[in-house]
Amino acid sequence: MRRPAVGGHGKGVAMASDGKTRIVVLGGGFAGVHAARALRRRLGADAEVTLINATNHFVFQPFLPEVAGGLINASDAVSPLRALLPGVRVRVAEVHGVDFEAKTVTVVQGMKRRPIPEPYDHLAIALGLGADLSGVPGMADHAYPIKSLADAHRLRNRVITCLEHADVTQDRELKRRLLNFVVIGAGFSGIEVAGELRELIDGALRYYPRIDRAEVGVHVLEFAPRILNELPESLASYAQARLEARGVSIRCGVAAKSLHARRLRLSNGETIESETVVATIGAAPHALVAALPLPNDRGRIRVDRSLRVEGRDDVWALGDAALIPLKDAPRDRADWAPPTAQFAVREARLLGDNVAAALAGAPLKPFAYASKGSMASLGGRRAVATVFGLRLSGFAAWLLWKAFYLSFLPGVATRVRVLVNWLLAAVLPRNAVQIDQSAARAARTVHFNAGDQVFEPGMISRAFYVILTGAFELTIEENRARRTLRLGPGEHFGERVILGEGERTGSVRVLEDSTVLRIEREDFERFAQGFAPLRDYFDRHLATRLPEDAPGAEAVALRSAG
Amino acid sequence: MRRPAVGGHGKGVAMASDGKTRIVVLGGGFAGVHAARALRRRLGADAEVTLINATNHFVFQPFLPEVAGGLINASDAVSPLRALLPGVRVRVAEVHGVDFEAKTVTVVQGMKRRPIPEPYDHLAIALGLGADLSGVPGMADHAYPIKSLADAHRLRNRVITCLEHADVTQDRELKRRLLNFVVIGAGFSGIEVAGELRELIDGALRYYPRIDRAEVGVHVLEFAPRILNELPESLASYAQARLEARGVSIRCGVAAKSLHARRLRLSNGETIESETVVATIGAAPHALVAALPLPNDRGRIRVDRSLRVEGRDDVWALGDAALIPLKDAPRDRADWAPPTAQFAVREARLLGDNVAAALAGAPLKPFAYASKGSMASLGGRRAVATVFGLRLSGFAAWLLWKAFYLSFLPGVATRVRVLVNWLLAAVLPRNAVQIDQSAARAARTVHFNAGDQVFEPGMISRAFYVILTGAFELTIEENRARRTLRLGPGEHFGERVILGEGERTGSVRVLEDSTVLRIEREDFERFAQGFAPLRDYFDRHLATRLPEDAPGAEAVALRSAG
Repeated sequence: MRRPAVGGHGKGVAMASDGKTRIVVLGGGFAGVHAARALRRRLGADAEVTLINATNHFVFQPFLPEVAGGLINASDAVSPLRALLPGVRVRVAEVHGVDFEAKTVTVVQGMKRRPIPEPYDHLAIALGLGADLSGVPGMADHAYPIKSLADAHRLRNRVITCLEHADVTQDRELKRRLLNFVVIGAGFSGIEVAGELRELIDGALRYYPRIDRAEVGVHVLEFAPRILNELPESLASYAQARLEARGVSIRCGVAAKSLHARRLRLSNGETIESETVVATIGAAPHALVAALPLPNDRGRIRVDRSLRVEGRDDVWALGDAALIPLKDAPRDRADWAPPTAQFAVREARLLGDNVAAALAGAPLKPFAYASKGSMASLGGRRAVATVFGLRLSGFAAWLLWKAFYLSFLPGVATRVRVLVNWLLAAVLPRNAVQIDQSAARAARTVHFNAGDQVFEPGMISRAFYVILTGAFELTIEENRARRTLRLGPGEHFGERVILGEGERTGSVRVLEDSTVLRIEREDFERFAQGFAPLRDYFDRHLATRLPEDAPGAEAVALRSAG
Repeated sequence: MRRPAVGGHGKGVAMASDGKTRIVVLGGGFAGVHAARALRRRLGADAEVTLINATNHFVFQPFLPEVAGGLINASDAVSPLRALLPGVRVRVAEVHGVDFEAKTVTVVQGMKRRPIPEPYDHLAIALGLGADLSGVPGMADHAYPIKSLADAHRLRNRVITCLEHADVTQDRELKRRLLNFVVIGAGFSGIEVAGELRELIDGALRYYPRIDRAEVGVHVLEFAPRILNELPESLASYAQARLEARGVSIRCGVAAKSLHARRLRLSNGETIESETVVATIGAAPHALVAALPLPNDRGRIRVDRSLRVEGRDDVWALGDAALIPLKDAPRDRADWAPPTAQFAVREARLLGDNVAAALAGAPLKPFAYASKGSMASLGGRRAVATVFGLRLSGFAAWLLWKAFYLSFLPGVATRVRVLVNWLLAAVLPRNAVQIDQSAARAARTVHFNAGDQVFEPGMISRAFYVILTGAFELTIEENRARRTLRLGPGEHFGERVILGEGERTGSVRVLEDSTVLRIEREDFERFAQGFAPLRDYFDRHLATRLPEDAPGAEAVALRSAG
């Protein structure tokens, strides 16, 4: 996750408004989408509602385990934001920072990745939570998270890949590791993932004659004394018994200590050998939320019961990113709204009312809502639930779970599509296809034409470039002077932005038809920092000041050794 | 594509057979899958039929344009090979080479990537065609191919990404480039892709208010004087008129000369600015087929009418990889079986019969088949077709096209799934969701535990490793002597295998818990060859002979500068 910059874009904000109030919503999860809808409905034509999100779709998080399990297609767990939000301006962009004084959000968007200011009159922050696995050494590098659609897809492919390899290997140790699947965390997500993985594997095994079902292990590890802490104990016990009967082993009171390439170390000194460890733990503040100068409590933004951020009258927060008191009580005895979709949707409705009230000078209403219940799917057409005080389990709970989630889905098309695929899944075998996800290479050859502009001033570099053939012109603006350098084969650019001082003002233009080797920012960064000969080279290189030559002079210092 | 090695694994072949005849089929396309089925059916329990393919699924190539167009899900264009081939042994592996004397195929498979011999009594080669875009400079780097499922998925995401960016950019030039989509080649694949892209875009545009339909260009370029050379001219004209009416511009008699980052140069001197160029041209021999010492004609293996490879009695070829005469005539007046699914399926049936006949000592039958017709979808519920001499076009042809393809699909589950999704697509809007495909990074930190084995002798290295913390032991077998080197932080391994002499005999063991920076083979290779400071470093490094020390001695020469 990119570290966002805060502030500094007060000047030069392009005026948008045709007199309309500009409401900007950050985040396209349950809270953000429903907030944008509520604002649109409440404020009508008097306001321009803009929703900014990193992807162009809403991800239905509770469905990710089913995607991982191959029960539904990846596209059935998402819905295009624009289709869900008629009348709302949707911007697909990364939020780079917020300037609360200038009332501007800075976003980075599009092909050019240039910071663009987005002014607001009211700002609603609904960025949700991030994930931080850094507490357990090796976890961030080796575990499979299940936060995004791509994660779910990757996990499903991983499981199929392990079965493929296990079916052919002659190495007993390797086979055992390949067939050991570990899920860390036994909240809703962990339990549902474990249940779905077991289903996926059991369904696929008939195609892998050399794997015996008894050789496959699906393990859930939970640090708390029991699973599904959000549910009453009797339901959690039932869920555990069901899962264990289906071959999921569950251990509570044990934490992960470290994860090396193939070995998970536990807090009790034991180790588990596994090629596939799924991490459903590590909820942490969203990186931007953590960086904003707003009052927060363990990473959640402090708001009053009207959802207004403490000390601000034009900034609001809701959903998982906000710490919302449920009653008027001193902080140490307060009750907080839980981070669930059910609450997020209610908060979003209140936000619409309260922003409208604030604009009209009317009094704000406090948030009040009591949960109607909760449920967890266990895979294999079983679930557990508490609804309106009733406890349900088994097949009836599963049907309820399905219906509940279906009704929660925004968009009729998605609802129909998901329903049909569920019905199909009931009669058809699961799809055990391994889909190659290989993306573009990190290092690749790119061609440019004379006259092309590679960088314009203010662009944020995403790569390091080595010139193979041709010529480029680098223009640097420094202390109001402009200097121009010509770069030829063997020389390179982009490294100062990545390894040095970050964003800077300069541009690169193509002088002749050229070929360059382009290396993705993150990969270049890691290699240049981790490999001594490269590190030494760039240390020396960056220490060399840019020459103070007249415009057009060739810069020897910028040349590479070759 | 990896360059395959040929021969050299004659010794030490593990005996499989329990007396059964071993038939190995290479390739899991139409020809390979139907051949394995036919062999299984004809030979029953007397033979072990093995199919070797690089993926665990069959890809229904004619559906890829529909995946690219978002009409059907990626998983509906594929079917797991094991589900399609009960009784057939399916190996998911890369074919590394064939030793025709030792009657052994060498495959590389699994986590360990060690070459494994697979002995055969009869071998059927059905590897299809590869693609080679090297004839047009820049094409291989910048164009979007549409050969694999991942390609189709990537193209669809690319189109949505262009719409996203075009909707927000202030730069008119950029917007024009983003909204220009070019398809090179007007065969079945090119025409279907162009039709589907137009459908996808037209359906999505209502969500992008700042894009006018007139701003979007979908262009097809064809070198031949007309499109759809495989169809009669009248049908091709109808297809062209239909596509043009829907806003696809088609130009024949023009070829691509070069493709630089954003500019396509044509043979007539014109240029087209586009961010998305789809290449459906460049059919070329499969890399392995090209490398095998078999008689071939422009990359297709020469077989007689019985499908037996000329000069061999235990090697057969079929499908697009084979050049199959349709009548007994001198080569210069021969008629060849066209590379279509329809012919491949017929060839596969004959292969089953002829292998059985060869095993029984009976005479072989010659291949004879006349096409029953052909068709092409145009998107927008229109198609063109010739069937049993009849010419059809429009909606009726489209229904026929659907029914034909559905009947061709192997596997009932896939048939039902595809049918249902087609029906859904008729009533629901297309899914314009952008799915993040970012794969694992090329450079990443990896942990190892003491005692782990990183390489075993004979493994094929997939990465370059820099040691960050910990210690490793490198063992090299050379001239029957074994030498051991200890490597510590700052030192590295894997580079000799990648930059030097390829496969070699050595192993790497982990001495202490360690952290390394791992860089994917292809990316490392490109960076180390393209960036002079790295190239110089490795040139010097590889020139240094390994020290002739006693076992256990530390090797100064292997140490990096840091």
